Amino acid sequence: MRIGQGFDAHRFAAPGSDRPLRLACLAWEGVGIEGDSDGDVAAHALIDALMSAAGLGDIGSLFGVGAASQGAGMQGDTMLRRTVAHLADHGAVPVSASVVVVGNRPKIGPRRREAAEALSRAVGCPVSLTATTTDRMGFTGSGEGIAAIANALVRMV
Amino acid sequence: MRIGQGFDAHRFAAPGSDRPLRLACLAWEGVGIEGDSDGDVAAHALIDALMSAAGLGDIGSLFGVGAASQGAGMQGDTMLRRTVAHLADHGAVPVSASVVVVGNRPKIGPRRREAAEALSRAVGCPVSLTATTTDRMGFTGSGEGIAAIANALVRMV
Amino acid sequence: MRIGQGFDAHRFAAPGSDRPLRLACLAWEGVGIEGDSDGDVAAHALIDALMSAAGLGDIGSLFGVGAASQGAGMQGDTMLRRTVAHLADHGAVPVSASVVVVGNRPKIGPRRREAAEALSRAVGCPVSLTATTTDRMGFTGSGEGIAAIANALVRMV
Repeated sequence: MRIGQGFDAHRFAAPGSDRPLRLACLAWEGVGIEGDSDGDVAAHALIDALMSAAGLGDIGSLFGVGAASQGAGMQGDTMLRRTVAHLADHGAVPVSASVVVVGNRPKIGPRRREAAEALSRAVGCPVSLTATTTDRMGFTGSGEGIAAIANALVRMV
Repeated sequence: MRIGQGFDAHRFAAPGSDRPLRLACLAWEGVGIEGDSDGDVAAHALIDALMSAAGLGDIGSLFGVGAASQGAGMQGDTMLRRTVAHLADHGAVPVSASVVVVGNRPKIGPRRREAAEALSRAVGCPVSLTATTTDRMGFTGSGEGIAAIANALVRMV
Repeated sequence: MRIGQGFDAHRFAAPGSDRPLRLACLAWEGVGIEGDSDGDVAAHALIDALMSAAGLGDIGSLFGVGAASQGAGMQGDTMLRRTVAHLADHGAVPVSASVVVVGNRPKIGPRRREAAEALSRAVGCPVSLTATTTDRMGFTGSGEGIAAIANALVRMV
């Protein structure tokens, strides 16, 4: 059994931007998030937690970074499924994972269960989702951006 | 065995406020922390880690949020005990947990062991507590607020 | 099996400073990091994760704090080896651990594998390393400082 930690943060796009607001493998109403791919910080933090638990590097090792990233335009659930397939190729099976989203919006509560189910389907094991704010403090509290912290357990077979 | 991640941050109350300074199930000297309940970020992050490890949602799922929160006025140890009872109702038993408090005050060091024991009693398994600062950087470094990051292992029976 | 969480953040030294830039048990080019010891936030967060998983306190419990710290001038790998020896004295064996470094520099990618290997050698179990930025937000995004979040699994024998 191995453990992994993941973190990601992205900036909200400027008002009027056509960037999508995607988080935890769901589409949400509102101004979107910047990023090479769909800016889904929950999915990305979870990918880093899974990749590191399996000792396979990080999201950049699998998808590349910047302009050359294969993740460009790719959605979180597609990236998560590719990550899990990559783990399987290396004998690593996700057992359990958990993600905290830190930010003012979107309001996760009403769709928390739906989002956790979408993450769990993509990963193939129970994935929990919690959400919190920082009381108007820091870059997550000012509404400048959104962050996610994730951890994961992986079994080596 | 399932893993959970938790995070919480609260703002310090204004000087002269009668808000209590409660952290890790202990009362401390000094200006308190804002929040619906007692503002105990260590207990709240730990509750989210436990709830998510058990796949039962988050602190808001159990206690509600805002004005309607049952956590209003409730202390961290009471909330932790209710959380663990809720987990037991769903066949989840805490195995081990850990909390990092990030902030300038209170000084945890001299009471670190006492605080870890209080958390462990409330949860019924070993809970560790560490504390650190951010070298005067960010909202925890400026003294504006305090944050906590927690993780937990839970066994499903 | 017990779980631990660790966090650390340090400020980058002023340009022209002779502080070393040490991270994840490696030396890097560039302006260094402040701190009592070598300022290696990855090693320090990992030490807190290991110490808390074993229920032995935190980095300050083992090395002291401030001017009295035995960590003064000590490098991350030496501190990690002493930590693991201390765990062994108390029947705790590291099983798996993971560290996320959050900051603009140094660029971890090209040396990620080398750094993970250095951490793994020092701890004696698989330790993964991932790295990310905060899109120019917060104290890690402004280049003011660098942070690390770590978790660890420890087996009690």
